[in-house]
Amino acid sequence: MGPRWKGKGAEAKALADPMSKIVSQLRLSFIESDLQGLLSGCIVLLEANAEQTDLLNRACFGRPIVNADKDKQWFQLSMEEAFYLCFALKCVKIICNDKWLKNDEEFWSCMTPKRANFHNLCIAYSHLRMKNWVVRSGSQFGVDFVAYRHHPALVHSEYAVLVLSGKDENTNGRLRVWSDFQCTLRLCGSVAKTLLVLYINKNGNGVVFPSCLENYSVEERMITRWNPEQSRENGTK
Amino acid sequence: MGPRWKGKGAEAKALADPMSKIVSQLRLSFIESDLQGLLSGCIVLLEANAEQTDLLNRACFGRPIVNADKDKQWFQLSMEEAFYLCFALKCVKIICNDKWLKNDEEFWSCMTPKRANFHNLCIAYSHLRMKNWVVRSGSQFGVDFVAYRHHPALVHSEYAVLVLSGKDENTNGRLRVWSDFQCTLRLCGSVAKTLLVLYINKNGNGVVFPSCLENYSVEERMITRWNPEQSRENGTK
Repeated sequence: MGPRWKGKGAEAKALADPMSKIVSQLRLSFIESDLQGLLSGCIVLLEANAEQTDLLNRACFGRPIVNADKDKQWFQLSMEEAFYLCFALKCVKIICNDKWLKNDEEFWSCMTPKRANFHNLCIAYSHLRMKNWVVRSGSQFGVDFVAYRHHPALVHSEYAVLVLSGKDENTNGRLRVWSDFQCTLRLCGSVAKTLLVLYINKNGNGVVFPSCLENYSVEERMITRWNPEQSRENGTK
Repeated sequence: MGPRWKGKGAEAKALADPMSKIVSQLRLSFIESDLQGLLSGCIVLLEANAEQTDLLNRACFGRPIVNADKDKQWFQLSMEEAFYLCFALKCVKIICNDKWLKNDEEFWSCMTPKRANFHNLCIAYSHLRMKNWVVRSGSQFGVDFVAYRHHPALVHSEYAVLVLSGKDENTNGRLRVWSDFQCTLRLCGSVAKTLLVLYINKNGNGVVFPSCLENYSVEERMITRWNPEQSRENGTK
């Protein structure tokens, strides 16, 4: 299943303005203004100027909060988005109770009690973003994320993403029984998405690399129903 | 969500020919001819005469096997169907390797290694059938069963049924994470079915009642999305 562009000219528009370029502009702008995000409950609040607001919207990070101020715009980031901007792009500092969370260990210990599977969701989100996919919540489709080839205004999401622990650690997660597979695949089919399962494995025993992301490996599996017709040597159309 | 009848006159037809009557006719006919089912792998094979074939089809049990013989028709029953006919209706004897399975313990020990959750599926199937629901496999919709108010030729299935172990024993099953709920409810909604979850509890410690079904209690829960509009005191239409 290829990308489903929204209307004429959407593909050309996307090609002319690659996501990687938008994100690196955003990164430079954030680093220049030494941007700080405030951790509040399960979200991170970010104060952006006009240029940054434009870049955040184009890169599809966070959700703008309605306010009357024309020069400053507040954004609400999910934990995965905050993690990515902070520890992969290293362009946002996260502040929790007036304390700067300097490394991922401090971030984990601050966030893990608030949400199960949080660790894996952050790693998976970063994995897809680093490949220039636009990633949004998949709760509408009963998955963790959906992944877009470019901005959701230009293209429909292509992948429904489930994030699972690798190496037989998947004790509480999804896809442990056939009925769950059948349910998920039928739903993905009906909304024209491919099911992508990301298994998150921790490398080594507590080895800490310069970037916390290098402590993990991500295994990608696309899951589709097997169609006997398509597997014949003389394939049908 | 009420029943969705298939075309004009379907409801009247169903009312004129209640499922309970069809099943009790089938039961009498089976007892009279001392019917035996042969356990083969994960199915039970049944040889039916013309009258029994008609009753099996009308009550929607099993799947007829195509053959050339006009007087005799073979039927393939699922394990749940065989369990119900054998231990709830007590009108079929099940034979496994030339040995008659006299009680449910013998049946369990013969079948359990072949399929996980088999116990619970049989109890749930019987529970619904005893209330005169027609029960078929729900694998098409990623659930264990679908339940029809009458024969599937007359009405669409109303419930998508998931069978879970009760009392915190649900270690490997469905609906343990939010994304699974979201997925299942979205799919059920899109095919106009209500999600019915049956929790199977075992009563007492190994107490054996005259019928094995009395050893279990079934807890029914219907799951729907909460719609704030519908919960207001001055309800909308």
